[in-house]
Amino acid sequence: MADVAEKERKILVAVDEGEESMYALSWCLKNVVSQNSKDTLILVYVKPPKAVYMPLDGTGYMFSTDIFAAMEKYSGQVASSVVEKAKKMCRDVLPELDVKVETRVENGDPRDVICHLVEQIAADVLVMGSHGYGLIKRAFLGSVSNHCAQNAKCPVLIVKKPKTNCGSK
Amino acid sequence: MADVAEKERKILVAVDEGEESMYALSWCLKNVVSQNSKDTLILVYVKPPKAVYMPLDGTGYMFSTDIFAAMEKYSGQVASSVVEKAKKMCRDVLPELDVKVETRVENGDPRDVICHLVEQIAADVLVMGSHGYGLIKRAFLGSVSNHCAQNAKCPVLIVKKPKTNCGSK
Repeated sequence: MADVAEKERKILVAVDEGEESMYALSWCLKNVVSQNSKDTLILVYVKPPKAVYMPLDGTGYMFSTDIFAAMEKYSGQVASSVVEKAKKMCRDVLPELDVKVETRVENGDPRDVICHLVEQIAADVLVMGSHGYGLIKRAFLGSVSNHCAQNAKCPVLIVKKPKTNCGSK
Repeated sequence: MADVAEKERKILVAVDEGEESMYALSWCLKNVVSQNSKDTLILVYVKPPKAVYMPLDGTGYMFSTDIFAAMEKYSGQVASSVVEKAKKMCRDVLPELDVKVETRVENGDPRDVICHLVEQIAADVLVMGSHGYGLIKRAFLGSVSNHCAQNAKCPVLIVKKPKTNCGSK
């Protein structure tokens, strides 16, 4: 890092259940978080809105309240699991650093939630995977990373999990 | 930086005549280039293909050879000027660092040229502005940053020039 030692940077990392977002977090820890700075990592997991589940039914009928409740419970468990996994990765990748890690679990359309959070916390950089949110959810939500790259009010680092060795350092 | 001191990272920065790409370079120098590493910055300027100029005529007629020659000359001068400005910025922002800077001037569709160069040099990260290439050229080329974020075979950092103080640190 050039002259960031004194800066208190806020690095917002969007995590989800996909491998790519964990790779993005790992890349960020190795390449962006600085050893001597006062960086704070804010890990955000966004639970997609209920509406995203509806088309999965496929019959045109709405799900029952029970099914929604079960989905909400499952969604909460996934959120906790992802956030814990991400926190563990921070400790594992940077064991020598006492990097400050905060976590947020939010609800809503990830595109809006993430862009809003960037402004709310005045993030210095947003880090996210290129994909994420699964094939089905993505079909309804559109590309989260594309939207954030264009609309988030801070620099956006989009990390793809490499399929080959190229760029995988 | 966490553990990049020994790594020789190749940081590819796409520059153009817009202010935003210079801001992106400056942000990269302050936030990504590491003090103790062996980072190499590769600055690339891509001259758009001749076809991009054609619609400017607006009459349906092709430009004459003379006009094309003049445009080519002007395009070359712009390339030199941009590359020199970018090199100067590297020296000004990081005067204490002997950061290695290489420059490339290429021809073609910036989307393809940049993505190809990422693979050719095995870049560790690609840095670029969100816009660039001017309003008219962009209308014909489409969004260069969107394309690269999705297709470049390395992490892509997209830096927007802030309009407010938010994220301008």
